Amino acid sequence: MPELRKDPIVDEWVIIATERGKRPSDFRIQIQPRTQTSCVFCAGHEQETPPEVHLVPPVNGQSEGAPWAVRVVPNKFPALQASGAVHTQAEGLGRLVSGVGIHEVIIETPAHARDLSELSVPSVAAVLATYRHRLRTLGADPRLAYALIFKNQGRGAGASLEHAHSQLIGLPLTPPLIKKELQAARAHYHAHQRCIYCDYLHQEVPGPRLVAQTDGFVALTPYAARFPFEMWVLPRFHQHDFARITDTQTTELAGLLKDVLQRLCTVLGNPPFNYILHTAPFARPQPGHWTTLEQDYHWHLEITPRLSRTAGFEIGSGLRINPTPPEEAAQALREAA
Amino acid sequence: MPELRKDPIVDEWVIIATERGKRPSDFRIQIQPRTQTSCVFCAGHEQETPPEVHLVPPVNGQSEGAPWAVRVVPNKFPALQASGAVHTQAEGLGRLVSGVGIHEVIIETPAHARDLSELSVPSVAAVLATYRHRLRTLGADPRLAYALIFKNQGRGAGASLEHAHSQLIGLPLTPPLIKKELQAARAHYHAHQRCIYCDYLHQEVPGPRLVAQTDGFVALTPYAARFPFEMWVLPRFHQHDFARITDTQTTELAGLLKDVLQRLCTVLGNPPFNYILHTAPFARPQPGHWTTLEQDYHWHLEITPRLSRTAGFEIGSGLRINPTPPEEAAQALREAA
Repeated sequence: MPELRKDPIVDEWVIIATERGKRPSDFRIQIQPRTQTSCVFCAGHEQETPPEVHLVPPVNGQSEGAPWAVRVVPNKFPALQASGAVHTQAEGLGRLVSGVGIHEVIIETPAHARDLSELSVPSVAAVLATYRHRLRTLGADPRLAYALIFKNQGRGAGASLEHAHSQLIGLPLTPPLIKKELQAARAHYHAHQRCIYCDYLHQEVPGPRLVAQTDGFVALTPYAARFPFEMWVLPRFHQHDFARITDTQTTELAGLLKDVLQRLCTVLGNPPFNYILHTAPFARPQPGHWTTLEQDYHWHLEITPRLSRTAGFEIGSGLRINPTPPEEAAQALREAA
Repeated sequence: MPELRKDPIVDEWVIIATERGKRPSDFRIQIQPRTQTSCVFCAGHEQETPPEVHLVPPVNGQSEGAPWAVRVVPNKFPALQASGAVHTQAEGLGRLVSGVGIHEVIIETPAHARDLSELSVPSVAAVLATYRHRLRTLGADPRLAYALIFKNQGRGAGASLEHAHSQLIGLPLTPPLIKKELQAARAHYHAHQRCIYCDYLHQEVPGPRLVAQTDGFVALTPYAARFPFEMWVLPRFHQHDFARITDTQTTELAGLLKDVLQRLCTVLGNPPFNYILHTAPFARPQPGHWTTLEQDYHWHLEITPRLSRTAGFEIGSGLRINPTPPEEAAQALREAA
């Protein structure tokens, strides 16, 4: 029988539609040939993007002679405007905040590689350390409440360029979905004096939704997976803010991330996917900015393969229909080692 | 400058990204030729679907000799299971409700027409009256808390068949997004003794976001439009439950709906879109079912063209980026008369 499942953290529901029971092979994607051999994100084309705001030097001679390993540039078509002050006003029943914010592109490799998982572990670690650097740097901008770091890979996931890259959008408000997590985590902490994500890990590891783990990190399919083969990667140790991650931890996380992205490719071909880093908001004394305590949040990465289209039901209800139970997805991903 | 706008009803935000400023012509869709001339939803193929649960007889000889004008059948691949009782249980930090519910397809015409807007006004009215019939009928099923009626038109909006149809999913819980509207509407009613949608209409009509109106109904682009060319159609009179609409009102609404869907085609070609009927939940005495009062909700139809892909930012933040200010969309739609 199908099931309606509530997310363990927030009040979000999903329909696990077992009757539509799709097997991994139903989703296998035909690998698209690369359409290009170089692009504006490749080394040698630096003048075709806005000037970089951050550059990571070559990692142990792995960057094939390029002058950089990771490069961060402002988005040429930013969703928000980098300059200006943040104003807020009522507009009748609506409310308006000036669209001030930061929109950056994190170019993950100087070569024309398409997948983060093709890079070496030190190169993936350099990307993760770049996320940390941007969070630390933008945390000093008093206009920003939050920086959301995410990846769109493949056209079906919203990517317009195939060269491996992630994006960062710094916002003057905490995104609604993050705020829901923060509120739920705080309520749990007040009730139990424990982190809800730590409790969730205790419940899930070991278990039928576990995909892979290292000493410090876990990858699992969430109980109320919204997307077929959705995975969460969490630190096993309590840490609320990704900006606190150590170099050693980035290397360990890079190994696990590369591993689980490769498993996704093994099971599904080369599926379009997004991943999103959920981390603490910038600590701010101002009203209207959600802050968090060290104790009551737990950063994590949510990986969402994009195997089906969002239709009217999802837009209207806020419920997603997932034809693949997360237990089956986890099993397929475990066996893909 | 871009703007962050809060929805007038619920605590949802959108980025109106004026810098990406897309003109209607940037979205114009190449009209797809129909791939078929008949299908399982056409008259004469009735035995290829599950037996109907409801049939509307031909409307004034407009059904081209077919034995029906509108036909309602169970979905062959239902998201929920029609039989069984509703059970709920805790699963660690998660929660489980058995996936019992109703999934129906409303076939809007016996001929192989693709668009509701191609039908005559009496035929569109017959579809709307069918929605009313299903709400009244399913409201008697004590297992259901809500019935969500929606349309997916075009592959980009999640439709798998091109023959004009809508769907209904009856659920054992009130969908989260509807619940947010009900909660916001109730809070407003408690504070002001007025319906928030009636207040919103008072604020918006006349105004720069008005698209079209009749004596009884209004079509407008919402202040915090999540999608380019998103439109809401609302009754000007207060009515919380679509099941209360009269025959005269369905005919008037059908005329306006046909009009605004035709405007959408004139401006954008033949865009994929969804529409979703937001109406009151079934009145239930049980705990856990959200009920509403006659005074504190206002049904409406939300039309969401699907012109861009949902990417990592939207999935992670719950914020949507809309490159077309609703004022510009409304102007283009008004001028498309």
